[in-house]
Amino acid sequence: MSEFEESGIGEECGVFGCVAAGEWPTQLEVAKVLTLGLVALQHRGQESAGIVTSNGVNPPTYNTLKGMGLVNNAFPPENLLKLRYGNLGIGHTRYSTTGISELQNCQPFVVDTLHGKIAVAHNGELVNAAALRKKVMRHGVGLSTSSDSELITQLLALTPPMEELDAPDWVARIKNLMHETPTSYSLLVMYTDVIYAIRDPYGNRPLSIGRLVPISKLHTAGAGEGETEGWVVSSESCSFQSIGAKYYREVMPGEIVQISKHGVKSLSIVPRPEGDLPAFCIFEYVYFARPDSIFEGQMVYTVRQRCGRQLAVEAPTEADVVSTVPESATPAALGYAQQSGLPYVEVLCKNRYVGRTFIQPNTRLRQLGVAKKFGALTDNFTGKRVVLVDDSIVRGNTISPIIKLLKEAGATEVHIRVASPPIRFPCYMGINIPTKEELIANRPEFEDIAGYIGATSVRYLSVEGLLSAVQGGIPSLQGKDDRINTNASRRVGHCTACLTGKYPVELEW
Amino acid sequence: MSEFEESGIGEECGVFGCVAAGEWPTQLEVAKVLTLGLVALQHRGQESAGIVTSNGVNPPTYNTLKGMGLVNNAFPPENLLKLRYGNLGIGHTRYSTTGISELQNCQPFVVDTLHGKIAVAHNGELVNAAALRKKVMRHGVGLSTSSDSELITQLLALTPPMEELDAPDWVARIKNLMHETPTSYSLLVMYTDVIYAIRDPYGNRPLSIGRLVPISKLHTAGAGEGETEGWVVSSESCSFQSIGAKYYREVMPGEIVQISKHGVKSLSIVPRPEGDLPAFCIFEYVYFARPDSIFEGQMVYTVRQRCGRQLAVEAPTEADVVSTVPESATPAALGYAQQSGLPYVEVLCKNRYVGRTFIQPNTRLRQLGVAKKFGALTDNFTGKRVVLVDDSIVRGNTISPIIKLLKEAGATEVHIRVASPPIRFPCYMGINIPTKEELIANRPEFEDIAGYIGATSVRYLSVEGLLSAVQGGIPSLQGKDDRINTNASRRVGHCTACLTGKYPVELEW
Amino acid sequence: MSEFEESGIGEECGVFGCVAAGEWPTQLEVAKVLTLGLVALQHRGQESAGIVTSNGVNPPTYNTLKGMGLVNNAFPPENLLKLRYGNLGIGHTRYSTTGISELQNCQPFVVDTLHGKIAVAHNGELVNAAALRKKVMRHGVGLSTSSDSELITQLLALTPPMEELDAPDWVARIKNLMHETPTSYSLLVMYTDVIYAIRDPYGNRPLSIGRLVPISKLHTAGAGEGETEGWVVSSESCSFQSIGAKYYREVMPGEIVQISKHGVKSLSIVPRPEGDLPAFCIFEYVYFARPDSIFEGQMVYTVRQRCGRQLAVEAPTEADVVSTVPESATPAALGYAQQSGLPYVEVLCKNRYVGRTFIQPNTRLRQLGVAKKFGALTDNFTGKRVVLVDDSIVRGNTISPIIKLLKEAGATEVHIRVASPPIRFPCYMGINIPTKEELIANRPEFEDIAGYIGATSVRYLSVEGLLSAVQGGIPSLQGKDDRINTNASRRVGHCTACLTGKYPVELEW
Amino acid sequence: MSEFEESGIGEECGVFGCVAAGEWPTQLEVAKVLTLGLVALQHRGQESAGIVTSNGVNPPTYNTLKGMGLVNNAFPPENLLKLRYGNLGIGHTRYSTTGISELQNCQPFVVDTLHGKIAVAHNGELVNAAALRKKVMRHGVGLSTSSDSELITQLLALTPPMEELDAPDWVARIKNLMHETPTSYSLLVMYTDVIYAIRDPYGNRPLSIGRLVPISKLHTAGAGEGETEGWVVSSESCSFQSIGAKYYREVMPGEIVQISKHGVKSLSIVPRPEGDLPAFCIFEYVYFARPDSIFEGQMVYTVRQRCGRQLAVEAPTEADVVSTVPESATPAALGYAQQSGLPYVEVLCKNRYVGRTFIQPNTRLRQLGVAKKFGALTDNFTGKRVVLVDDSIVRGNTISPIIKLLKEAGATEVHIRVASPPIRFPCYMGINIPTKEELIANRPEFEDIAGYIGATSVRYLSVEGLLSAVQGGIPSLQGKDDRINTNASRRVGHCTACLTGKYPVELEW
Repeated sequence: MSEFEESGIGEECGVFGCVAAGEWPTQLEVAKVLTLGLVALQHRGQESAGIVTSNGVNPPTYNTLKGMGLVNNAFPPENLLKLRYGNLGIGHTRYSTTGISELQNCQPFVVDTLHGKIAVAHNGELVNAAALRKKVMRHGVGLSTSSDSELITQLLALTPPMEELDAPDWVARIKNLMHETPTSYSLLVMYTDVIYAIRDPYGNRPLSIGRLVPISKLHTAGAGEGETEGWVVSSESCSFQSIGAKYYREVMPGEIVQISKHGVKSLSIVPRPEGDLPAFCIFEYVYFARPDSIFEGQMVYTVRQRCGRQLAVEAPTEADVVSTVPESATPAALGYAQQSGLPYVEVLCKNRYVGRTFIQPNTRLRQLGVAKKFGALTDNFTGKRVVLVDDSIVRGNTISPIIKLLKEAGATEVHIRVASPPIRFPCYMGINIPTKEELIANRPEFEDIAGYIGATSVRYLSVEGLLSAVQGGIPSLQGKDDRINTNASRRVGHCTACLTGKYPVELEW
Repeated sequence: MSEFEESGIGEECGVFGCVAAGEWPTQLEVAKVLTLGLVALQHRGQESAGIVTSNGVNPPTYNTLKGMGLVNNAFPPENLLKLRYGNLGIGHTRYSTTGISELQNCQPFVVDTLHGKIAVAHNGELVNAAALRKKVMRHGVGLSTSSDSELITQLLALTPPMEELDAPDWVARIKNLMHETPTSYSLLVMYTDVIYAIRDPYGNRPLSIGRLVPISKLHTAGAGEGETEGWVVSSESCSFQSIGAKYYREVMPGEIVQISKHGVKSLSIVPRPEGDLPAFCIFEYVYFARPDSIFEGQMVYTVRQRCGRQLAVEAPTEADVVSTVPESATPAALGYAQQSGLPYVEVLCKNRYVGRTFIQPNTRLRQLGVAKKFGALTDNFTGKRVVLVDDSIVRGNTISPIIKLLKEAGATEVHIRVASPPIRFPCYMGINIPTKEELIANRPEFEDIAGYIGATSVRYLSVEGLLSAVQGGIPSLQGKDDRINTNASRRVGHCTACLTGKYPVELEW
Repeated sequence: MSEFEESGIGEECGVFGCVAAGEWPTQLEVAKVLTLGLVALQHRGQESAGIVTSNGVNPPTYNTLKGMGLVNNAFPPENLLKLRYGNLGIGHTRYSTTGISELQNCQPFVVDTLHGKIAVAHNGELVNAAALRKKVMRHGVGLSTSSDSELITQLLALTPPMEELDAPDWVARIKNLMHETPTSYSLLVMYTDVIYAIRDPYGNRPLSIGRLVPISKLHTAGAGEGETEGWVVSSESCSFQSIGAKYYREVMPGEIVQISKHGVKSLSIVPRPEGDLPAFCIFEYVYFARPDSIFEGQMVYTVRQRCGRQLAVEAPTEADVVSTVPESATPAALGYAQQSGLPYVEVLCKNRYVGRTFIQPNTRLRQLGVAKKFGALTDNFTGKRVVLVDDSIVRGNTISPIIKLLKEAGATEVHIRVASPPIRFPCYMGINIPTKEELIANRPEFEDIAGYIGATSVRYLSVEGLLSAVQGGIPSLQGKDDRINTNASRRVGHCTACLTGKYPVELEW
Repeated sequence: MSEFEESGIGEECGVFGCVAAGEWPTQLEVAKVLTLGLVALQHRGQESAGIVTSNGVNPPTYNTLKGMGLVNNAFPPENLLKLRYGNLGIGHTRYSTTGISELQNCQPFVVDTLHGKIAVAHNGELVNAAALRKKVMRHGVGLSTSSDSELITQLLALTPPMEELDAPDWVARIKNLMHETPTSYSLLVMYTDVIYAIRDPYGNRPLSIGRLVPISKLHTAGAGEGETEGWVVSSESCSFQSIGAKYYREVMPGEIVQISKHGVKSLSIVPRPEGDLPAFCIFEYVYFARPDSIFEGQMVYTVRQRCGRQLAVEAPTEADVVSTVPESATPAALGYAQQSGLPYVEVLCKNRYVGRTFIQPNTRLRQLGVAKKFGALTDNFTGKRVVLVDDSIVRGNTISPIIKLLKEAGATEVHIRVASPPIRFPCYMGINIPTKEELIANRPEFEDIAGYIGATSVRYLSVEGLLSAVQGGIPSLQGKDDRINTNASRRVGHCTACLTGKYPVELEW
């Protein structure tokens, strides 16, 4: 919903990789698959985009394409031509958390090493990045960007020293890296003819694998292995449909998966410290992911709907209609309506052309605020008591003018129901959250939040309610899976640090 | 919904004007109001945009700003500065029907005449444009564009001959023009310090007036005349909210309204031929307008909801769930659900970042088609019988892959319910409709349309059903109105030419 | 030289046309010829450029391409493709005199008339434009630009009234136009399959015709008529070489020449009033034209060299070396050196990358002025007395820092010798000259111009000297010419209005 | 001249640095000085440009600005604002030798090290780059670009290991670097508040220091130290004039100079191996440098003129006139004319607007070749025997059409005199020379080069002649200099590797 958008809360990135199966060169046109895959991950980052392809021979030719802005603008057609001959490749779409928006921070990051070029695309944020930077620099390496991706490439190149090896054991190096930094990263590392897909031991960021099959077999049960046209790996499974891939499986927390033209192979699972649970970011469910993505065996849309239902149980309301702040809160609002039995209506319509405008607002225009963005569908709520469901209230300054708009247009009551608990703590694992002081839940106004934002009443979903909505639907792991260690029953856990202050690992400063 | 988008059906344009009230110069910053007003009309045309402001003194200084693309891109900030001192102005956002997409066709059109400059912004299409062009050219005038707007400006300048007058009687000239061409036009003509807002006698295109009041008074009943900060006039009232204007009234079919700093004055109503009904375009209700706009006293959203209800009455379905092709068909789908008692669910989510891509699709990508644009929310429909409500089926090639997507993802039946009648005839009044041969309703496949598009069943709303949904809610006209001729009770009529082939005026070729 | 550049003195425009000879379609690629032709005329205008091609059939298809800036930037390659099928076309490169730099003022101007489209490209300025605009507007025509070209197209369309004719007699219309406005114009009018090339009766602006021959025949005497690949017409003959055309002849003052695939035909010569001499702009020789162009049978470079020689006769100097302000004054400087016997050396080198910079100069940078542009070649003048030859001194603020630079770098004396007389009067025929008050020759400082600009001495060429340098070399007209009226011996005359205040026609206000 | 341009022979880069003197912050606006300085070095590289400024406090804030293309385009004004507060900075303008033209190769290169950020700008090419890359990578460092500058920054950071030091001894690190790579580099290294200016021990690339004084004192002998406003350091002294700096001195071969707000200090001179002479690139004199630059105490223009004189002695010609291929060969042509006593005339004029065009040439246009670029000034040479002086003949395909042009336009003989010896060998020190096979001097055609290019005769300057023209004018070093080791008399030597195959250092592969 809009509160996140307005507050500048955002995901750091999306990563996407593709390997053509079978004999090379293929007809797959990997660069096109990568581009479309990134378009489907665009909601995870709109600042810049990049792709790197390899022709897969030894020594390989890498081609890189990077640009600022949306994927469709960042890659002009004449430049895409350069990447024509790629047989595998990785891509990245970036959301800037640090505010330095420059082409040189654009990923994937490619470096030349003693044993050839590696390319890295990263989603997440290393919790101990500062210590690692110091370590690398103490070794005498200069770092040319502030991005974790460059740090990761240099760490991969650095330890153990290159000269000890005849050929690089990248998997050993990746394991070393994973021991040096516990979280948070979903990582794609491309080297010559193979992509390593890695999730940190806590599984903080998502990563899923898909299989490209003939379009005609896309929706049938049995496209045999022989019909595989290629493999893709993506931050979210929502990108599979748009490029004609079948969902295959998730990369497990701590797992290193090798993807090559010969198929998908699980190489290792780096374990968490004894007793630690996985810590998949719960806000991927609440807000970040596209609703048609699948995490842990469940569709994001359905989880959001369950949140809405749980909210209706926890915070019932005497009202006439239930509605949503479009568009992301809609599943929760429909869930609330179903559970409560109140009718669902639309009260706001969105102007999809409102974007960055060059106009310097004068006083008058500044007062109008949200009015440019939403139109009031007055017939649906005049004279009525409205339950308005939203994902979250971050700073409280977006929902406030919406309430004003509804009340002035004739709503008799506006009850705000928030389908997640209050955000109170910073995230150090890749989500850009306002400072503690800016979060409404940490401010004195929160005592009378309803009064502050002008609502008739305000209620939040509880942490327990959110966890039960998320964890209630996770299916148990099937034994037939091809991951290395399948005898362990799936243990469930999620990162709720921004809600509870309990971080998955101890933070050092 | 998407079928229109894909089919390239579109509105020609949106027009918007603003006059600052009271003493000039004012703090209103007319150019900013115009820009925001056009942003709110962006759905009516995305090809190019233009605004012209006048400082309103005699002789006036006009400043013009035009650009290709969306309003926010078309007007770079340094250029907006030029328009700073405008006290009134008109703007235009253009959808190209003819395919010639050039800056010189961008409106408003400004010409210098013997008595000074006039600026014209036009929404519609003159049914007798060809004859009028010939007439003007026979007079010896060369026409530098193919746009009706230039034709209108030259007609206004030409007759009666300029030399007969001491000062130009623009109102007489406008009446002459209206007698020469019956439809279709909603027109803004700016001359020095006044804007004339004109609707053709059939009222084919919409035009509404709003009043700028102090933001604090925006939603209170009584902002007195003395508190008027300015007047705006717009193709749709949806733009009023975003600039802080109160809805004032529509311009009537055939009416010439003068808007100046002194207020709004109805100058004349040019009548239709005896016996003719008004002919407001019924597709403004069905598809073109933003749902929060008000035409003929009723909100567009509500009319669409009524269409859905009527459709449920005319075409009931044995099914499990009702859903929509997002986003424009949602009110009709909700109406259908309400009337039928079936639960409303979402089955598709839209990737809002899919745009024009530079990728040349290969065979594989072409087969994927709609998959880039919509994700399937499978949990909501697997194993279920789905009623999918859409606005219209134009060519039939958009809905077909959506049905395939739903079926392959597990829907057991997909019943298409179309909330408008089949389109069979071309429009000559400003809407860009595919050729007769391309319209699915005129093709042999229409005999078995369900089979052709792969649906379990297909049903359309009847013309009578549509008319009753539209006309059933039009309130009777109040006597207190300030229009010239209020004793006539409002007579209701709508243009359904594209559905029935009955055009409001006889067409000459 | 730089003084003109800095002062903003400039030509209005360059025009260029091309017709492919023989059977159509041809391999000539007229659009490419036009583009290269305009590149060669770029010095006449850098603000915008445009070309219009016609396929030459009836009714014709015209394609237009316009853009801001230099020719090479204004026409992106994908747009040039549109013009592929042209068999004839005209182009224009524009220098803005009025300061309104907008795409809509870009030429050629194309209008649709009762009998089809005409396109007009114009170099010059109509002395009675204001009266003509009024006349056209009185007829009821609105004018959408302030350019003379639109005015000319409307005048051509307007009189006599179109309805009186079965087919348009464009030649009669052109003659009418020429009787309505005596000067200044060199004009290309394209209609369907023919280009009319016209010079005003005073011949104020140049216009030359060239013949495209096989490249192999380019420099041989005898490429027969049968080997003609096409015809070109251009403001200056310097463009012929770059597209492989042989110089054919000038269009005569008052002449209307028809150029078609069948060849070149002189249709008429509209005479001047009895007793009036031709008035070809003398500053085309002094500054505007490229030195390799040919006017009136003589090469511009040679005329400039003669000016330098004459200057050495009129204003001899006791000095050690002669030099130039690069680059345009070099022929005059070499002429001065030859005549005086003093050695020619270079004292300044030009930084060809200095262009429009975005840097806001601070005080320090502003003081540096000319230093960014010229480097001092100190070895060549330290301890010496320098004669520095320049084309003209307009405002006096460019030459002054150059003199300072030379003196500070070691020149013991700097004698300025100007190879043209002082400019004292405005031009109303297409040259952008500073206001009378800005011209140094009209200011009190001129009394002691040497002191004012810091020179040891300053001398100008006399008007008589300039005229003798220009007119002394004009060959007498050959009888074998194909122009209509060849029995008249060529009468010689030049416009020196900016030097003498004697305008070729009486000016009305 | 044009032969180099056409052949793509080019310098690698220009470097420029500036430190504001006295108390910080100053009014100097270092970013503007850097920008203007780079504009004056634009001839050394037009592909990309970059500047980095530091505010000079500890820890410093660095601001970086990079862009493709010419300096004036690469730095848009809004971005220049970011650099406002710099008190010192370095800049770079790049010519691509490798063909990979991307923003990420743009210099200066900035990296973060354990002790803070350093920025490096480099002109030259490390002869042992491949070995050094391997060494760095063996240490475990990944290199993200192919540029020597990144290599240099990593070498500076790497050895000796960072952890051994409390504070970085950059000077020791720079000396280490200089011992690892003998040539070719002129280097600027910025660290916090100081710029180190370094020339390799062979002095292969130029580097000069200038002093910013009050503009009023610019050309007077005595602007005392107290009046110093800042210090600049530049590849060429030609940039000093444009920013108001006085020439101070050259950086000596092997010297490390520290430039800070306290002034200029020579820290060390790293010696060459016993017996080796300096090896300043002789082609800086012949072609690359701007003629007003000063190297080794002599003005480039004067050296070129001496080359022309020497050429006239070595290769006298029976002819009527001497001329130049504009613009770079003009000093040599004037020298030839002076020595030979033949008159100097211009035979070609250059169209300065010819640039990169988007037109795909057809056969006709391709045959025209050079004609777009040069106009023939026929009056000056028709019927005459022409000596045409050029800088060099690289591939022979530029001069050939010029000769054809002159002959066809009437020259009876065209004698080519080349003011440098034939280029026969590749350069590994930063100059982009065609492959051996492409060089005309290595091809069979060279046997009859006159016949091949169509000239009446062709003669080159001898290597000895070139060396005497260059070395004959170098003044002996004055004892009063402030460099460390002034008792050594200046030893003279130049790199002539591309002419003789004798490289200054042994090349390992």
